[in-house]
Amino acid sequence: MDRKLNGLKAAICQVKIVPGNSRVNGEHIVREIADAEKRGIPLIVFPELSVPGYCLGDVFGNDGFVDDVLEWNDRIRESTVGKDIVVVFGSLVAASGKTGKNGRRRISNAAIAVRDGVMLGQVIKTNHPNYGVFEDDRHFFSRKEESFESGDPLSFRPIKMTFQGKTIRLGIIICEDMWHTHHACNPGARLVEEGADIIINLSSSPYDWHKNLVRNEVARMLLAECKVPLIYVNNVGIQNNGKNIITFDGCSTVYDSQGKIVHVSGTYVSGTSDVTFADNMPSIASVDQDDTSDLYNALSFAFYEQFQTLPSGMRKVVIGLSGGIDSATTAALSVKVLGKENVFLVTMPTENTSDETLGLVYDIARRLDVPVETIPIGELVDAIAAKAGCKPGTRAYSNIQARVRMEILAAKTEEIGGVFIGNGNKVELAFGYGTMYGDIAGFVLPIGDLVKREVYQLADHMNRKVFPNPVIPDRCFTIAPMAELSETGADPFDYGNLHRRGYHDELVRAFVEFLKGPEWVLNLYATGRLEAEMKLDTGTLDRLFPTKETFVKDLERCWELFIGSVRKRVQAPPIIKVSRRSFGYDFRESMLGVMRTLRYERLKRDLLAGRTWNGGKRRIAVYGGSFNSPCNHHVGIAKVLTEMFDLVIVMPCGERPDKASANVIDPMHRGVMSEIAFGGLDRVVVDLTDIRDKTYTPSYHLSERYAERYPDADIWFAVGSDLVTRGADGKSDIQRTWTHGPVIWKTLQWVVVDRPGHEISPGELPPVSESICMGPIIGSGTMVRERLARGESIDDLVPRGVVEYIERLGLYRNSE
Amino acid sequence: MDRKLNGLKAAICQVKIVPGNSRVNGEHIVREIADAEKRGIPLIVFPELSVPGYCLGDVFGNDGFVDDVLEWNDRIRESTVGKDIVVVFGSLVAASGKTGKNGRRRISNAAIAVRDGVMLGQVIKTNHPNYGVFEDDRHFFSRKEESFESGDPLSFRPIKMTFQGKTIRLGIIICEDMWHTHHACNPGARLVEEGADIIINLSSSPYDWHKNLVRNEVARMLLAECKVPLIYVNNVGIQNNGKNIITFDGCSTVYDSQGKIVHVSGTYVSGTSDVTFADNMPSIASVDQDDTSDLYNALSFAFYEQFQTLPSGMRKVVIGLSGGIDSATTAALSVKVLGKENVFLVTMPTENTSDETLGLVYDIARRLDVPVETIPIGELVDAIAAKAGCKPGTRAYSNIQARVRMEILAAKTEEIGGVFIGNGNKVELAFGYGTMYGDIAGFVLPIGDLVKREVYQLADHMNRKVFPNPVIPDRCFTIAPMAELSETGADPFDYGNLHRRGYHDELVRAFVEFLKGPEWVLNLYATGRLEAEMKLDTGTLDRLFPTKETFVKDLERCWELFIGSVRKRVQAPPIIKVSRRSFGYDFRESMLGVMRTLRYERLKRDLLAGRTWNGGKRRIAVYGGSFNSPCNHHVGIAKVLTEMFDLVIVMPCGERPDKASANVIDPMHRGVMSEIAFGGLDRVVVDLTDIRDKTYTPSYHLSERYAERYPDADIWFAVGSDLVTRGADGKSDIQRTWTHGPVIWKTLQWVVVDRPGHEISPGELPPVSESICMGPIIGSGTMVRERLARGESIDDLVPRGVVEYIERLGLYRNSE
Repeated sequence: MDRKLNGLKAAICQVKIVPGNSRVNGEHIVREIADAEKRGIPLIVFPELSVPGYCLGDVFGNDGFVDDVLEWNDRIRESTVGKDIVVVFGSLVAASGKTGKNGRRRISNAAIAVRDGVMLGQVIKTNHPNYGVFEDDRHFFSRKEESFESGDPLSFRPIKMTFQGKTIRLGIIICEDMWHTHHACNPGARLVEEGADIIINLSSSPYDWHKNLVRNEVARMLLAECKVPLIYVNNVGIQNNGKNIITFDGCSTVYDSQGKIVHVSGTYVSGTSDVTFADNMPSIASVDQDDTSDLYNALSFAFYEQFQTLPSGMRKVVIGLSGGIDSATTAALSVKVLGKENVFLVTMPTENTSDETLGLVYDIARRLDVPVETIPIGELVDAIAAKAGCKPGTRAYSNIQARVRMEILAAKTEEIGGVFIGNGNKVELAFGYGTMYGDIAGFVLPIGDLVKREVYQLADHMNRKVFPNPVIPDRCFTIAPMAELSETGADPFDYGNLHRRGYHDELVRAFVEFLKGPEWVLNLYATGRLEAEMKLDTGTLDRLFPTKETFVKDLERCWELFIGSVRKRVQAPPIIKVSRRSFGYDFRESMLGVMRTLRYERLKRDLLAGRTWNGGKRRIAVYGGSFNSPCNHHVGIAKVLTEMFDLVIVMPCGERPDKASANVIDPMHRGVMSEIAFGGLDRVVVDLTDIRDKTYTPSYHLSERYAERYPDADIWFAVGSDLVTRGADGKSDIQRTWTHGPVIWKTLQWVVVDRPGHEISPGELPPVSESICMGPIIGSGTMVRERLARGESIDDLVPRGVVEYIERLGLYRNSE
Repeated sequence: MDRKLNGLKAAICQVKIVPGNSRVNGEHIVREIADAEKRGIPLIVFPELSVPGYCLGDVFGNDGFVDDVLEWNDRIRESTVGKDIVVVFGSLVAASGKTGKNGRRRISNAAIAVRDGVMLGQVIKTNHPNYGVFEDDRHFFSRKEESFESGDPLSFRPIKMTFQGKTIRLGIIICEDMWHTHHACNPGARLVEEGADIIINLSSSPYDWHKNLVRNEVARMLLAECKVPLIYVNNVGIQNNGKNIITFDGCSTVYDSQGKIVHVSGTYVSGTSDVTFADNMPSIASVDQDDTSDLYNALSFAFYEQFQTLPSGMRKVVIGLSGGIDSATTAALSVKVLGKENVFLVTMPTENTSDETLGLVYDIARRLDVPVETIPIGELVDAIAAKAGCKPGTRAYSNIQARVRMEILAAKTEEIGGVFIGNGNKVELAFGYGTMYGDIAGFVLPIGDLVKREVYQLADHMNRKVFPNPVIPDRCFTIAPMAELSETGADPFDYGNLHRRGYHDELVRAFVEFLKGPEWVLNLYATGRLEAEMKLDTGTLDRLFPTKETFVKDLERCWELFIGSVRKRVQAPPIIKVSRRSFGYDFRESMLGVMRTLRYERLKRDLLAGRTWNGGKRRIAVYGGSFNSPCNHHVGIAKVLTEMFDLVIVMPCGERPDKASANVIDPMHRGVMSEIAFGGLDRVVVDLTDIRDKTYTPSYHLSERYAERYPDADIWFAVGSDLVTRGADGKSDIQRTWTHGPVIWKTLQWVVVDRPGHEISPGELPPVSESICMGPIIGSGTMVRERLARGESIDDLVPRGVVEYIERLGLYRNSE
């Protein structure tokens, strides 16, 4: 650590930001500055956008709102008049007279440094995040864009402050600026090059899975290069984008110049910490919380704060309790967070409700010490079904049950003054396993970002660590989850549980959190790597899917459900984001049809056919010959090849000095006849290059040509079995007579088509080869030419169009 | 026009793009290329992202999907082998080994030019749109970013093709690249500088209000500079982002080098037009459709296409008919677009339903020739209310009606196999005037982007121009809109109608389409400009709001409803976008509390107090004096000032050579006592600068200091009435004795506080002044000093804290 900083005290102000409320935030900041000055602190730092808040959507386009933020900037600056403290806070700045986004006023996400009523400098964010919930580029003008506009490269200048007679240079950056590995610019390092003695990162960085671990690693990488201390100041609170409730966990951290953590502010605690820089500051042991504790902390904080956004008389919740783990978990969470006096439990059985689940409902309510109201809804359901003309046992009838439950919850809610919440989890949302306006409804879906295994873990955590006694009965952890909307049995998913991961849980995570599709899944499955990748118990897939066919069928069903249920999710309640990517605006979903990629279709075909695995590359067969004339059996071979390959290239040779028969008619005619014979076939193209160029390209060179024309394809050469005979001895025609024969024998891939009299024995085949057994083949070019020379009919040997062409032009009459 | 282009034929391929389906799009493109080549066309152009589609959300982050697009790029290129045609199509390109968005693979939105199997070049989009429904920066890497990364300025190179032996340079740009006025780079102009003979703009540009008119203007501006022809090729179809259905209207246009329109492809027609360039191509008269025709075309196209996304057996719609204009309009639209055999009408009366509206329901159904089923729901509603414990007449009871209707529509829908739709309009959505899971529900809200006036206009348009005979009865246009969920009367909004605009319609447009807030509205209202700005009939506002108070009350109610109903909109069905900005992802809304800006509060206060209008600037009063000592009456004046001003600056002077009494004690004591007396008052600050600097700043200089410290504020100087006496004659103390007295008398703003014995007569006041009548004032600094010198109590004259300070330090004992 630079000695200059020794003794410097900095107030790390981890404020709770109220999004969109500059007044509350501004007043808070003014107050904190006054307090810090009274404590004699020379430097106070606030998080990114601490005046307006961050996740505000298009409010940033409202000029009145922006003016208000600017006025608060002024007020904060004014409040420092006469005070000897350097204040660094995050806010908006506006560049008057310059064009911003979509022709609007130009505003930027910036840090402002002031002292004694005077602006010391302002720093505009360089690197904008535009992923997940972030959309900085929609609203703000970055330094990157300024640089592009002016044509000048970016320059970085630290902001100076005086401390005990020495000048300290503050290198101020904003949030994503630190996550430089994904960007072309590293503002922190650039500032240190320009003399910064310390980096201060103003952040507004939401909690998600293991984010803080990653951030510590990023900081360490930065400081390994920069070798100065780093103050990372983050806010707390929740903000949302309409569809996601995002938690900001604070955890403001100070690193020394070796990247060692020397201070961490509390998780989800709004408050200011004073840090004094010194030599050899003691290292803070990083708090190793287990994942479920993190999850519980984030969820309970968000849940509580979300209810604080309601008017104070409305902070009551109605929950429909089914006896299953999901509703038990949300009920327990609600009781803990809101207090049992604010939780109203209702159970609404029908004839599909089992005695056991109803018993669980009462057990849960008893353990939570909350009364549960039982409202049987069978008659109501029947009444509505009768009015609408729906019969029991139909899907419509099932959904009526879910919607009547919603009706009752909604009505109760309005009657008592509160809200109701939904109990759906991420797997149900992913596969649309829920009823729109039924169980997919409510003020918030508290566990909507948890796969089933995480629901069990959360429930277990609350049982063991949150409540003095278990509130969720053991049986809830073992009973098979089922919707109980009809007589159908358990949910059709392999959910995880407390002790193991579930395939469908992990499939949802692959689709949503990692943006993977069925192609990725199938490729891993086929190569035996899926269980390891998904961290499933060995044998899970075999247990679930006895055959490849059943695996594929389930995968396709899941993908269809996933795509098809976007329509439900766009009308779903807000979800608390706790994972890497949650449904909501974090994961932008358009309503699209189910589309399978070309590669997926090939993977599936190859898997089911037990074919050599090439990772789904396009398989192309090159089928060369003189086609003199093209015959029915040629067409037959091409057709069989299309069953095995994605593309069949028929390649008639041009003039061949070495094969007189190829030249008995103008090769152009062979080209035209090939077009006639093969051109109409699906996935067959006729390559007339050699005909046009009057040449004959050996396979050795053809393979180069096609590798260039069809990059990333898997190219095979189709040959008759006569050409590979005696291959084991190196004496096949290919090895002996073809250009670079011994080389291509080993390096190219061959499809060997059996020819009468040349049965193929495996030992004779080239190293990489597949075989096609065509059965008896009638006809050959020679036979056609002979018959024509004799004036005999070729109708049985040659496609109709070719026959007509030959007849019209009188080909082969005079030859031989 | 450059002669070189004469005779050049270009196929403008306005394809219908199926979003997310590269297979369908790729095959379509391949087919169009083959057809165009057969017609002998040397150049064919396709729209932006014509392989993958545009509005796909995070599907762009799925590597399998991207690979599939890249394979289709290859397949399109391969399909041109042997063909003499230059193909320009929009697609994705990937830069391997380079970091893209959020550390992912780098992909770009690009144009690809190929010929005879060979890539001629690729052009990456320079200017990314990130507003409304667009989020290019989320997914794609732009040329701008490439330039920033490399540090090299952008270079632009046309792509060459040969036509009739001449080289033609194609200047290819992508969509937003043309809308250069909002960006720092004009790629079209740059390409022309580099020799481009023609500009080709590949677009995927959605329809919205007057967009094509604006685009023609932008094109004309570009060509006025560039003087080459321009091909603008756009796609048709619908795409969506989950919450918005966006229509692409095609209207591909060719402009000659003067910007004259020489070709327009049909609106919403998928197809290819061959355009031959020549000298003096005839100008196409632009089709002047009225706005309502445009609206009808967009809506009916989107509505039809949205139903095409359903499985073919599901393209039936159930509509709840109320007799009002909204449901009548959606029913008529549905009948026209889907055919009457696919429309099922249901009416669900309760006791709140009037005979008249029920009569209208039957009249509408008869005119549409569709049977209507009547399902009274009163008993069901009562049954649910009874179960949930809701009483008739409550809001909960009202909402049960709306939700039961939804239940029945949903159940019917599932029974017959189809969907139901919602009838809500933009005004209802804006103010949350609808029931979640009740009437705000359905497959789509077809008129969810129309204010009420537009609904009437659309209904009238269909009556007059779409159907042979009017299908919507005249009475629907005149009956007062009401929800009929309770006995309450007509909707509390001033909707527009066929013949005039409505205030609340326009208020919604201001809030949503123009991102305005109450501050903007109030400022226009107060200055008499709101009716003109909103194009309302003169007198509308006076009719609706007899007083300023009622206007403000309604405005605040509307803003609260608008902000408070975000929670409903985030769970609302998709909306067809037809306006400049629609609810949905087009307008990003976070759930925020109602926040009024500082300026709004000032505007309101000034309006209601009838104060001089300053446009909501912060009003600051500077209250200077010697405060020797500060007395109760000083504090009283400061308090009265805070009622009139946003900030009161108390400014005790430092040493005053001209006023001996100011120096009887160390001025520092006056500063401390001022802090004690005023420091705790809300919105009062004490400026100790002069005390600290031991000086006395005259008002002339103070006004400069404060103008700098408080920019954009409205600053007033508080003075006692004794100082303005005889001002009319130029003989007031201010004019005679203050620094630049005659100048500041005229240029500063004064608040004159009456002092005993110095009653103010209006004629004596400075030109800009306000007066405060304080009533009888007891005490003065002189009196305090005199009493202390006499050893008498000052408890009745001076604040408690000041008394204590004086006593502790024994001030004023020895003075005088």
